[in-house]
Amino acid sequence: MPTHPLRVTIWNEYVHERRDESVRRIYPDGMHRPIADALRRELGAGVTIRIATLDEPEHGLTEEALAGTDVLTWWGHSAHDRVSEEVVERVHARVLDGMGIVVLHSGHHSKIFRRLMGTTCSLRWRSDPGGEREVVWTVAPGHPIAAGVPQPIVIPHQEMYGEFFDIPQPDELVFISSFEGGEVFRGGCCYRRGAGRVFYFSPGDQEYPVYHQAEIQKVIANAVAWCAGIAASNDPPARREGNAPRGWFIEAGSPAQTR
Amino acid sequence: MPTHPLRVTIWNEYVHERRDESVRRIYPDGMHRPIADALRRELGAGVTIRIATLDEPEHGLTEEALAGTDVLTWWGHSAHDRVSEEVVERVHARVLDGMGIVVLHSGHHSKIFRRLMGTTCSLRWRSDPGGEREVVWTVAPGHPIAAGVPQPIVIPHQEMYGEFFDIPQPDELVFISSFEGGEVFRGGCCYRRGAGRVFYFSPGDQEYPVYHQAEIQKVIANAVAWCAGIAASNDPPARREGNAPRGWFIEAGSPAQTR
Amino acid sequence: MPTHPLRVTIWNEYVHERRDESVRRIYPDGMHRPIADALRRELGAGVTIRIATLDEPEHGLTEEALAGTDVLTWWGHSAHDRVSEEVVERVHARVLDGMGIVVLHSGHHSKIFRRLMGTTCSLRWRSDPGGEREVVWTVAPGHPIAAGVPQPIVIPHQEMYGEFFDIPQPDELVFISSFEGGEVFRGGCCYRRGAGRVFYFSPGDQEYPVYHQAEIQKVIANAVAWCAGIAASNDPPARREGNAPRGWFIEAGSPAQTR
Amino acid sequence: MPTHPLRVTIWNEYVHERRDESVRRIYPDGMHRPIADALRRELGAGVTIRIATLDEPEHGLTEEALAGTDVLTWWGHSAHDRVSEEVVERVHARVLDGMGIVVLHSGHHSKIFRRLMGTTCSLRWRSDPGGEREVVWTVAPGHPIAAGVPQPIVIPHQEMYGEFFDIPQPDELVFISSFEGGEVFRGGCCYRRGAGRVFYFSPGDQEYPVYHQAEIQKVIANAVAWCAGIAASNDPPARREGNAPRGWFIEAGSPAQTR
Repeated sequence: MPTHPLRVTIWNEYVHERRDESVRRIYPDGMHRPIADALRRELGAGVTIRIATLDEPEHGLTEEALAGTDVLTWWGHSAHDRVSEEVVERVHARVLDGMGIVVLHSGHHSKIFRRLMGTTCSLRWRSDPGGEREVVWTVAPGHPIAAGVPQPIVIPHQEMYGEFFDIPQPDELVFISSFEGGEVFRGGCCYRRGAGRVFYFSPGDQEYPVYHQAEIQKVIANAVAWCAGIAASNDPPARREGNAPRGWFIEAGSPAQTR
Repeated sequence: MPTHPLRVTIWNEYVHERRDESVRRIYPDGMHRPIADALRRELGAGVTIRIATLDEPEHGLTEEALAGTDVLTWWGHSAHDRVSEEVVERVHARVLDGMGIVVLHSGHHSKIFRRLMGTTCSLRWRSDPGGEREVVWTVAPGHPIAAGVPQPIVIPHQEMYGEFFDIPQPDELVFISSFEGGEVFRGGCCYRRGAGRVFYFSPGDQEYPVYHQAEIQKVIANAVAWCAGIAASNDPPARREGNAPRGWFIEAGSPAQTR
Repeated sequence: MPTHPLRVTIWNEYVHERRDESVRRIYPDGMHRPIADALRRELGAGVTIRIATLDEPEHGLTEEALAGTDVLTWWGHSAHDRVSEEVVERVHARVLDGMGIVVLHSGHHSKIFRRLMGTTCSLRWRSDPGGEREVVWTVAPGHPIAAGVPQPIVIPHQEMYGEFFDIPQPDELVFISSFEGGEVFRGGCCYRRGAGRVFYFSPGDQEYPVYHQAEIQKVIANAVAWCAGIAASNDPPARREGNAPRGWFIEAGSPAQTR
Repeated sequence: MPTHPLRVTIWNEYVHERRDESVRRIYPDGMHRPIADALRRELGAGVTIRIATLDEPEHGLTEEALAGTDVLTWWGHSAHDRVSEEVVERVHARVLDGMGIVVLHSGHHSKIFRRLMGTTCSLRWRSDPGGEREVVWTVAPGHPIAAGVPQPIVIPHQEMYGEFFDIPQPDELVFISSFEGGEVFRGGCCYRRGAGRVFYFSPGDQEYPVYHQAEIQKVIANAVAWCAGIAASNDPPARREGNAPRGWFIEAGSPAQTR
């Protein structure tokens, strides 16, 4: 685990909050604000937080910024196609190299998530005025991402996301949601990709104050901590290059050498 | 895959149907009857069916009966503890040896299922008069067990089974149900144990005509076919006994021998 | 399962066999030849086979060709970067839509495999003159892909592929290889992606007659059959488009409607 | 994660060390001694250690002892059948309740491991005089259990354990071993069962000084820490008993109540 403080970059597309009055009312400082506040509250002194948004140069995700990031969170929706391929490549490589990534809600259709999954990541959805009740059930009650959250979490008003959700079967499935309309959704999914960890968490539409809900904030903080919980790789790519000579792993003078 | 016809044994506790008037009205010939009819209709000439029940000697599951069974289906509820340990051992060994098993509804608490899972297999439940609507969602749309069934299956009246369901994470999760009350349930779960396959399917309470519903029958038939889809083991236990000499797997005269 | 005969396209880069004398001696008609012969022998009258190679227009993988393919096998090595992005996109989409794909040996670094996996798919390797012995162990003895092959398969001379192999954890791991030099490799890996199935199988270097070995041919035939074993999706993408109205899945007049 | 110090119980059958001169020479104070020393060195002030052995009353695993244990390690070989069913039941229940368990080497055939797995857990083995070289490869290089250990670990002399190993497919596979004789073995396997975590680690025969090897000690310490890394269950069994009334999860006065 990192010995330095946990360094988080919160990436937010930051389009709806500036464009849509209905969204600005809920998130006047951007959706990243309640997420940042929650991480500080839940993860305490151990966390340092950067905000990065689409409109910054290189979307705020330069090589240097990513090198200094242990876990990235990702919210996007209306501008997925404005994210440059170059930045997607860079984030992808950094995840495989060990950075964690927490993909939120409509980020399911982001280039980076589809790239990591290898599938379309499409799903069913319904956006009724006023939304509907989502109930988030824990199906792995001892999992660190479910720590300290109620069974179940009730979100009074949300957009519906429903199956079939076109993702690889998760390495660990933590949450399944139900919706008033009768749909279900695998909304809390863990993956390991390369040396990095990926968590997808579905709650959180721009039209509802979901990221102000303490229980949802708790899950996001838990997910950030879980994604940071990797060890330094004991077999980094550079060690795996070129033609490996027979016995490369036997040290000179080792008792194994004579065998 | 078996070259002989597919040999299925339908095991039914067969207690409620004889004891409870409400159940007898729905299943006058026992719950095994509509299941048997469905397997014959869906799997055709290729299937032979035996019925076995709790009250028969050795519960109808003698060594000989099991040796002649490719797939066993299991329904039990009120008399789990009347199933003898000896028969449980025998069924368990036969599954590891390659027999498939389809465990239905309240069979989640049977000795054999708990034995195969290694967990308590406990769950939440609600039995309201009249039951409630269950909606069965496919989360693996190309899976053979979901073949030809609607997305979703709607069961008008059912008992509620809800999470947390204490099972190992399934090797493949095929169905997730929602209930009117807002609960969700991993109700269609595939496992491989030894050389055998296991499928758990939650719909089907004695108080509701669920096993008369064509779509549910279709799933059970698909599951029986999937559980039979193993190949003969290419490494049966008898080959793995005793101290294996160095090079046991190299044939005399093989070019690999000289290396 | 397909009711029509199983339609296989064998894709071969087909560079080494025409360029390198050492390879031409082993595979005078191309590596696709022994693979095609094996599929015909093992899968019988039920299979139709097309060969497609890099130098054909669109690499022989037009929309029409892929629409008429149930399972594609893929061998490439020296010319991965000459495969056009457009064809990769097309193959990728077709896999998610239900086509199976069997990726062979050095295909681990092909664009299509990396695209499906979402990882680098890099590995350790050693190419010593004469190669070394590879022993292929079955770790899922009842799996259809291991049906009828010896435990273990011994390949007298092969290139070494070793861990860490940067892939997502397989949905099912079927084979693990050991090499004379002491390395191990997860060489038989099953994945489900979208409605399609993926199998990666590592044996088979251009410098050794691995694809002439009957046991390896048997595995490839089994893998093709397994990849074809999906059902038609019961929830194709077109059904999941747009805003889903509340109750879209309840038929008019259904008893579920009144609830 | 536990706020109290990590409480470990090292369980050792402790038969060979007292009975066999060859073993006593290697482990004069019992195999538990180097394991205990290693945990103290690697896990530091945060760990308290108890030793428990077969000959103690209730094998040293009373209700009270288990209630005060966060992680149990298990080594047994010649006396598996002398472990009482009652104690096995107790350990099993405690694991499902959240205690971690690290099962070592020949513990693969212990009653508790077979109970947790639901399979025979049988394997191939070879015990040649002098043993043979085992090479332990990491296949999950960022996993906390692999932290800080070399890729690969070389054990100069060991008993051979080979596939097929009859276990459920691991939730996460961390290590695969090769042996001089050409066999492979899934020797580092993670499972989640109920609210508890299970790790099986194969190195360590009584005839070789494997538990004196620093790298092996490091893995065991990592495994103990990983097994302790669960959160308190957010849905303990007692909350799941009885008939759950509709809406049991909606708090009075919640905005969700009116929906």
